[in-house]
Amino acid sequence: MSGLIGGAVLRQLGAAYAFGALNRRAVAGVPCHQADIVELKAIQPAFAGVDAVVHLAANASMSAPFEDTLRANVVGTYNVFEAARRAGVKRVVFASSGATVSGYEREMPYRALVTGCGDEVGQWPMISHESPLRPSGLYGASKAWGEALARYYVDAHGLSAVCLRIGHVTAEDRPLSPRDYSVWCSQRDIVQMIDRCLQAPPTLRFDVFFVVSDNKWNYRDLTHPREVLGFRPLDSADRHRAPGGAAATP
Amino acid sequence: MSGLIGGAVLRQLGAAYAFGALNRRAVAGVPCHQADIVELKAIQPAFAGVDAVVHLAANASMSAPFEDTLRANVVGTYNVFEAARRAGVKRVVFASSGATVSGYEREMPYRALVTGCGDEVGQWPMISHESPLRPSGLYGASKAWGEALARYYVDAHGLSAVCLRIGHVTAEDRPLSPRDYSVWCSQRDIVQMIDRCLQAPPTLRFDVFFVVSDNKWNYRDLTHPREVLGFRPLDSADRHRAPGGAAATP
Repeated sequence: MSGLIGGAVLRQLGAAYAFGALNRRAVAGVPCHQADIVELKAIQPAFAGVDAVVHLAANASMSAPFEDTLRANVVGTYNVFEAARRAGVKRVVFASSGATVSGYEREMPYRALVTGCGDEVGQWPMISHESPLRPSGLYGASKAWGEALARYYVDAHGLSAVCLRIGHVTAEDRPLSPRDYSVWCSQRDIVQMIDRCLQAPPTLRFDVFFVVSDNKWNYRDLTHPREVLGFRPLDSADRHRAPGGAAATP
Repeated sequence: MSGLIGGAVLRQLGAAYAFGALNRRAVAGVPCHQADIVELKAIQPAFAGVDAVVHLAANASMSAPFEDTLRANVVGTYNVFEAARRAGVKRVVFASSGATVSGYEREMPYRALVTGCGDEVGQWPMISHESPLRPSGLYGASKAWGEALARYYVDAHGLSAVCLRIGHVTAEDRPLSPRDYSVWCSQRDIVQMIDRCLQAPPTLRFDVFFVVSDNKWNYRDLTHPREVLGFRPLDSADRHRAPGGAAATP
């Protein structure tokens, strides 16, 4: 909850939920169990009596050494699902990532969309939550692991799990690169989505949703989250374009 | 190569290839580099000068403790791809598993097919290599990780990778349970498939194939490997049925 998305969740939804944090260091404004998700036993107490877990902890670096991705994302995500299962948590909202499919950006037409050349592309097939995975980096592969684990835990252990393939959320809360005109996700939009996942009825057992803002050059399907959850992004990277249509720069 | 499939490969293809083994203990009849795939540095020498790697090493137990699956399958498979990349290996044939999708067997009509009730099912939709993953156990999730890793290594590092979702290969080389009338794979059929993967032209960059024998109650698509590789299973679990159609028992 000390991270970028966790902080946005706390600010925007703190009054609506009785949040508790599981974090390595204390988090201002919320009861916090201090532990590292690499240690299953150490995190277990944080799951007691909890209805739902929003699992945002990860090493999000695309260039992290394997050992770091392994610990934080592979082992850490297993520990979160296992602790949730043992505690009888009803739902886990898992922060997966668009990096599970951003390998598609290596090829046209997606390459044009993420390099500021979207206007040269007429139409493009949207990537859906059921398209084959195409991960970027060990990071993307680690999120594919998390989604596979989620599916298994739902089937075998009866909890509910929702995987959110989150786009690029920025501390500045605006697009920072040409690619962001495709994959940017505002803080308000990711918080809306997490809220909808927490509110969804128990009949939602397992699902995977992309989350990005309403960007003109987006290639990630938002029909499915709209139909299942009523999610509609309120923001758009295009509203941050400089006059004349040039992409904003950092 | 000391395992069930590795042994079958050596027996059936040993005269056609200059095999070397990477194995924890020595393997009779083949040069062997002894090391554990958990140790990247220790296995690296085995990859020098090699055209292709057939990665069969895994903890295949569906009930292995997480730590064992993590070491052998998650870390081990990363180490194999990374060592292959560093050595300039052209192709990795990765033994994935039908366990990436066998979660479908929890529900009808697949449940009937794997419980000896296939005759009660008229038709069923085949599960294809592009169907959403539905892993069984941590084992199935670890194979989903391996497939994601394979896709990433192909995209980012230019090697070729083929993922084989292998059915149930048995030491007795015949079906041993009612489920095997759906998912059994003869030793001859898996060896044929590995041979075809090694022989496929360099234009085959990345793909995923199911491998099972020609079983009446099979639900895993074999059209794709037939079209891409010319794979046709030579065996069938049904030929091992006792007179009267009853399933064989161990």
